[in-house]
Amino acid sequence: MDVRELVGQARQGRPRAVARLISLVENAVENAETAANGGQSGASAGGDTTASRALREAMAELATGGARPHPARVIGLTGSPGVGKSTSTGMLIRAFRRRGSTVGVLAVDPSSPFTGGALLGDRVRMQDHATDPGVFIRSMSSRGHLGGLAWATPQALRVLEAAGCDVILVETVGVGQAEVEIAHLADTTVVILAPGMGDGVQAAKAGILEVADVLVVNKADRDGVQTTVRELRTMTALVEAPWRPPIVTTVASKGEGVDDLLAALDKHQAYLEESGEARRRRLARARDEIEAIALAQLRSRFAVLHGDRLDVLAERLLAAETDPYAAADDLIAALR
Amino acid sequence: MDVRELVGQARQGRPRAVARLISLVENAVENAETAANGGQSGASAGGDTTASRALREAMAELATGGARPHPARVIGLTGSPGVGKSTSTGMLIRAFRRRGSTVGVLAVDPSSPFTGGALLGDRVRMQDHATDPGVFIRSMSSRGHLGGLAWATPQALRVLEAAGCDVILVETVGVGQAEVEIAHLADTTVVILAPGMGDGVQAAKAGILEVADVLVVNKADRDGVQTTVRELRTMTALVEAPWRPPIVTTVASKGEGVDDLLAALDKHQAYLEESGEARRRRLARARDEIEAIALAQLRSRFAVLHGDRLDVLAERLLAAETDPYAAADDLIAALR
Repeated sequence: MDVRELVGQARQGRPRAVARLISLVENAVENAETAANGGQSGASAGGDTTASRALREAMAELATGGARPHPARVIGLTGSPGVGKSTSTGMLIRAFRRRGSTVGVLAVDPSSPFTGGALLGDRVRMQDHATDPGVFIRSMSSRGHLGGLAWATPQALRVLEAAGCDVILVETVGVGQAEVEIAHLADTTVVILAPGMGDGVQAAKAGILEVADVLVVNKADRDGVQTTVRELRTMTALVEAPWRPPIVTTVASKGEGVDDLLAALDKHQAYLEESGEARRRRLARARDEIEAIALAQLRSRFAVLHGDRLDVLAERLLAAETDPYAAADDLIAALR
Repeated sequence: MDVRELVGQARQGRPRAVARLISLVENAVENAETAANGGQSGASAGGDTTASRALREAMAELATGGARPHPARVIGLTGSPGVGKSTSTGMLIRAFRRRGSTVGVLAVDPSSPFTGGALLGDRVRMQDHATDPGVFIRSMSSRGHLGGLAWATPQALRVLEAAGCDVILVETVGVGQAEVEIAHLADTTVVILAPGMGDGVQAAKAGILEVADVLVVNKADRDGVQTTVRELRTMTALVEAPWRPPIVTTVASKGEGVDDLLAALDKHQAYLEESGEARRRRLARARDEIEAIALAQLRSRFAVLHGDRLDVLAERLLAAETDPYAAADDLIAALR
């Protein structure tokens, strides 16, 4: 595979080249995970396999080979299962396409590469836009505590940006860490809730309000929507930051509320640019990405070079012959 | 604070000493996160602050100062918001207490240290068992992509084990990474679902069946319970591993089904011991813990020693003057 050519094709918006580059990223996550769990295929982030060399080369080419005049606008969509994230994503794809924007969608499944859930949803949705050259939809899965998302997602975003996407929607399922990670990656994070289900309380519990730039109550044709909106309003009233998340009600399946949502997104985008927050977020993102890659590389070095050492240390810890901090010191010393 | 004395008191099952030791662990997570985000309080896992020295000392004392004849049995409980995790935990506390077991509960909130949701639930539940010296309940929060849970939770478990807990229930909210992490920590992972809510499909999507040792359909007095059980049965029928997760129905709020659940838990425990899987899991846990501490230490070194360097690299990445892998190499080189 000639990486330079692949990157060139992706820059021209060729879907297959875009897909192949994102697959490179995804495979690297999987290899890193396998390696870290004691498998042999590893060293991905460490840079020893062919796939990983290709990824490094592609990222070097993409990151330095001519910046775009405007960076892509990254919008994260998150929320509990069943609130209608995919439907909302679909609604936004259509809305941004009507404006003439090119749209990338990255469906991030923070759980498992094996169940294929995300891929299925992916395929279903791809059919809706199969003939539209202005839409790229890819899903990516990752699992475990590698922090795989933290380093893979920015790389996938870079591919979609290079392909000319004006807007990139990053959709993720889950309550907890995944959202926080996505919030770090997005310019604007949209947290979607649905009436009932105790979502309001759960949102507070899961700290979701800390990451939300825009709150959406979807399925607003259901009972209880006013209660949920009221709960959220009470909570956002306490926000003292310069940006207070607006609350938008939608019925994504019917496209209702899409104009309000777009207005809220645009308002947040304007706030980001005017306040200098846009640049701060991009810098934090770059910082996180570099650090995540460095940590993944170190982790794969632990696995590849010191797998045996780690096994010995684990045995000794179980046998009460060492303590976890001393063992960790030993592991770090073995890096040198 | 004399750490040796504190550990001695925890070993005697003194609740205040147990609470203080777990707070040490929790503070270390928070400090590490602050440091990693550019704050000043850091170096926790790196070992420079007083709190962190105390934690290291406590863990050394706990890990090596006389192992217990039987390790505590760690049972993880997980599931989407609203399925009744806390109620199920309460039901199991009472059931294990009736058997004469000492019970520790660790409620892990993978989202945020700021919202206090978990702490609230903690306080409410502590009242139920406030006068029972055989029950320890603590909650712990962590956020972001630090992998904070991965290194903090085993340390909190070590404290509860030292305090004499026969059974430790680890309860966590969420769909996605958090479960996978908890599953790595527990001997037996219980995934709780509720009828309706599309939980069956969502469970598959989130890869939850991969981590479940026992499946519980709670709120079994509601409509749709048979559908959910049927869906799960269809899915578990495909499991080819030596252990096929049993499906138990409960109404935790009324204590219904608790005997079936205990029987399933005991059966899994027996399987773990007979198959040698118990030891494999404990080894994997030790390995993960050591590695997570080593990575957290390295991460805090990045933050503390090379914060400026990382900022410069992030600026250069944004300016298309470097690529993320080259920047990561630079960061790792700066460690030396």
